[in-house]
Amino acid sequence: MSHPDLHILAQASQDLLAAVRRDAPLVQCLTNFVSMNYAANALLAAGASPAMVHAVEEAPEFARICGAVVINIGTLSAPWLDSMLLTAASAGQAGTPWVLDPVAHHATAFRRDAVQRLLDLRPAIVRGNASEIIALAGGQSAGKGVDSRDEVAQAEQSARDIAARRQTVVAVTGEVDFVTDGERSVRITGGSPLMPRVTATGCALTAVVGAYAAVSAKDPYAAAVAALSCFSIAGRRAGTLADGPGSFAWRFLDALAGLEHDCLTRESPLR
Amino acid sequence: MSHPDLHILAQASQDLLAAVRRDAPLVQCLTNFVSMNYAANALLAAGASPAMVHAVEEAPEFARICGAVVINIGTLSAPWLDSMLLTAASAGQAGTPWVLDPVAHHATAFRRDAVQRLLDLRPAIVRGNASEIIALAGGQSAGKGVDSRDEVAQAEQSARDIAARRQTVVAVTGEVDFVTDGERSVRITGGSPLMPRVTATGCALTAVVGAYAAVSAKDPYAAAVAALSCFSIAGRRAGTLADGPGSFAWRFLDALAGLEHDCLTRESPLR
Amino acid sequence: MSHPDLHILAQASQDLLAAVRRDAPLVQCLTNFVSMNYAANALLAAGASPAMVHAVEEAPEFARICGAVVINIGTLSAPWLDSMLLTAASAGQAGTPWVLDPVAHHATAFRRDAVQRLLDLRPAIVRGNASEIIALAGGQSAGKGVDSRDEVAQAEQSARDIAARRQTVVAVTGEVDFVTDGERSVRITGGSPLMPRVTATGCALTAVVGAYAAVSAKDPYAAAVAALSCFSIAGRRAGTLADGPGSFAWRFLDALAGLEHDCLTRESPLR
Repeated sequence: MSHPDLHILAQASQDLLAAVRRDAPLVQCLTNFVSMNYAANALLAAGASPAMVHAVEEAPEFARICGAVVINIGTLSAPWLDSMLLTAASAGQAGTPWVLDPVAHHATAFRRDAVQRLLDLRPAIVRGNASEIIALAGGQSAGKGVDSRDEVAQAEQSARDIAARRQTVVAVTGEVDFVTDGERSVRITGGSPLMPRVTATGCALTAVVGAYAAVSAKDPYAAAVAALSCFSIAGRRAGTLADGPGSFAWRFLDALAGLEHDCLTRESPLR
Repeated sequence: MSHPDLHILAQASQDLLAAVRRDAPLVQCLTNFVSMNYAANALLAAGASPAMVHAVEEAPEFARICGAVVINIGTLSAPWLDSMLLTAASAGQAGTPWVLDPVAHHATAFRRDAVQRLLDLRPAIVRGNASEIIALAGGQSAGKGVDSRDEVAQAEQSARDIAARRQTVVAVTGEVDFVTDGERSVRITGGSPLMPRVTATGCALTAVVGAYAAVSAKDPYAAAVAALSCFSIAGRRAGTLADGPGSFAWRFLDALAGLEHDCLTRESPLR
Repeated sequence: MSHPDLHILAQASQDLLAAVRRDAPLVQCLTNFVSMNYAANALLAAGASPAMVHAVEEAPEFARICGAVVINIGTLSAPWLDSMLLTAASAGQAGTPWVLDPVAHHATAFRRDAVQRLLDLRPAIVRGNASEIIALAGGQSAGKGVDSRDEVAQAEQSARDIAARRQTVVAVTGEVDFVTDGERSVRITGGSPLMPRVTATGCALTAVVGAYAAVSAKDPYAAAVAALSCFSIAGRRAGTLADGPGSFAWRFLDALAGLEHDCLTRESPLR
């Protein structure tokens, strides 16, 4: 990407950071049990308002009043899948953008099938690691569990394919992130080697992508780029101060809450 | 409230702090997935013994052997509601005090109905934020999700009404807390602006209110005041040391565990 | 145990520490809601790869591709029990070692029955506190909830009995830990008085025992000893630095991740 284009994108990210903090969008998460607390805290640190509402009795209804919905299959079960499908459909009807995190969807038949049905309901953004995105495009990934065993660079073409075919935005995260809407694409550097050593950082990122989608419903590509940029800078700062994964987890939340309003242009991680 | 009355109440709080630490009451929580870990850690820091027992197969049975029950609808679902209703009824029969946290009950029809059915089972104490308490009394709250968008001062009359009508104690928390049993009432200052920026601090408080109810079954008003006073002082101390919401979360647990035996009279937050 | 034997065991532990970090075994956990996040973070800090996969639709399938399975009944419910039984059976058929944590199994009839059925499926290792192990052997424990109210020393004979009768390894944890396979036995000192004041440290330990079982399937006794030794040293170090239970929780993860490759022989906690 040319330098002027990167600068425009960084400026758009900065504007979205201000919008999230001003509007405190209500983000409904149907996410996994492991990440619920950390994702809610990440949303609060980012300036959004988390709502972990997942029961089939109310989740589809709630999708009509919130700013965005986040669906994460990390600890999937049959009743939750029912609720996810109805909630994604309800979000679609209400014009509420929704974000999909296909955690370890390649690991079992149950997940593979669930993710295909969810994709048919047209998420605005899909966020995954390299193994997940490669497998989603039909390729052979090295992943077995929730951790990626592939490099992001190997997943870039898969991401472009999915984005173009599904008319969605795909964000692949790893040492260097990659975001594409099938035509445009950008890489995001930064973060910290400690991030994959803290559980739920990826899920928390997907939740925060939801917060940005809520204030940028017409441009989910810009939303994904902005959210990933915040995580990149906060991750780098937390990594500098942390003594290990335990201290990284809370230092990251402090760093996310403390981002200066202009850091996304001053220290732009876009490449 | 007159100064001598406040002093008596502060002294009662101090005695209850000693009782919780001495008796380590077993507190059964049917709480939400977001707060389970933090609420259990808050109970341990307060000197109590947490028991996150919620399955319908055992929760009503357990309500007869524990010191208090805490019911929190944060991530409600139909099977959990069944268990909550049976457990509250069992607690009532056994004389075990129980505490209700009506998280975001105004957000969906499912929650509104659930909370009315739970209230009919006569909780000893109801703990909520201003939006929740206003809506519970039938008023128009500005709340949409789990965060309050109203001031506690606006919820004081609602709290008195519910307490009198339902013969319960109502604790409204926010920048300045308010506790009433319909006749008596007191305000509690302190805490930290970071508390609403850390998820599950309210749920953790409700759990600790349960611990105090266990050692003060005959006077739930005193129990609520004591628990809120502990959170007020620990919150203020943690807020002074914290660099953001991430560090506040663990500093608060350290502060709660480290409260001196006489801090509730020496630094009484009652007004 | 004689000094040369202790030295051999410490050396074996050190070799297993290297193996876990080298192989990053995939550890499937069917664990409780309170501990999921902390157990996953402990597995990552130990060098393993956590997979919180519990739904009946996929958990038995996953048990055939992972390195070890951990089953913890902390927040048991009927659907989870079904999945646990099928997953334990599947692990048994596939030769995947599995570890049982019988949390508070003495508290209710539902748990007591569940644990007996799980024991019949032959776990490689059982990890519990003294109250749990005494009750498991049919004795009278003082425990009521999840916290132990008995001393490990009083549970040693119970542990030997269960290990011999069930052909398993039993690890009893407390101020001084005890591990036995019915014939061999060893005590492990160290840790910190703050460990029982942080929820889920026991559950996290059971998860890490699973990681060690994955790299030592033929010698589960050595696996349990190595995992407990890591927790002992990391716990002691975190306890020295912590100001309370809140700071202990993350300092422990930092310490676990930071263990030097030879600490298990240099500072052996085996007695």
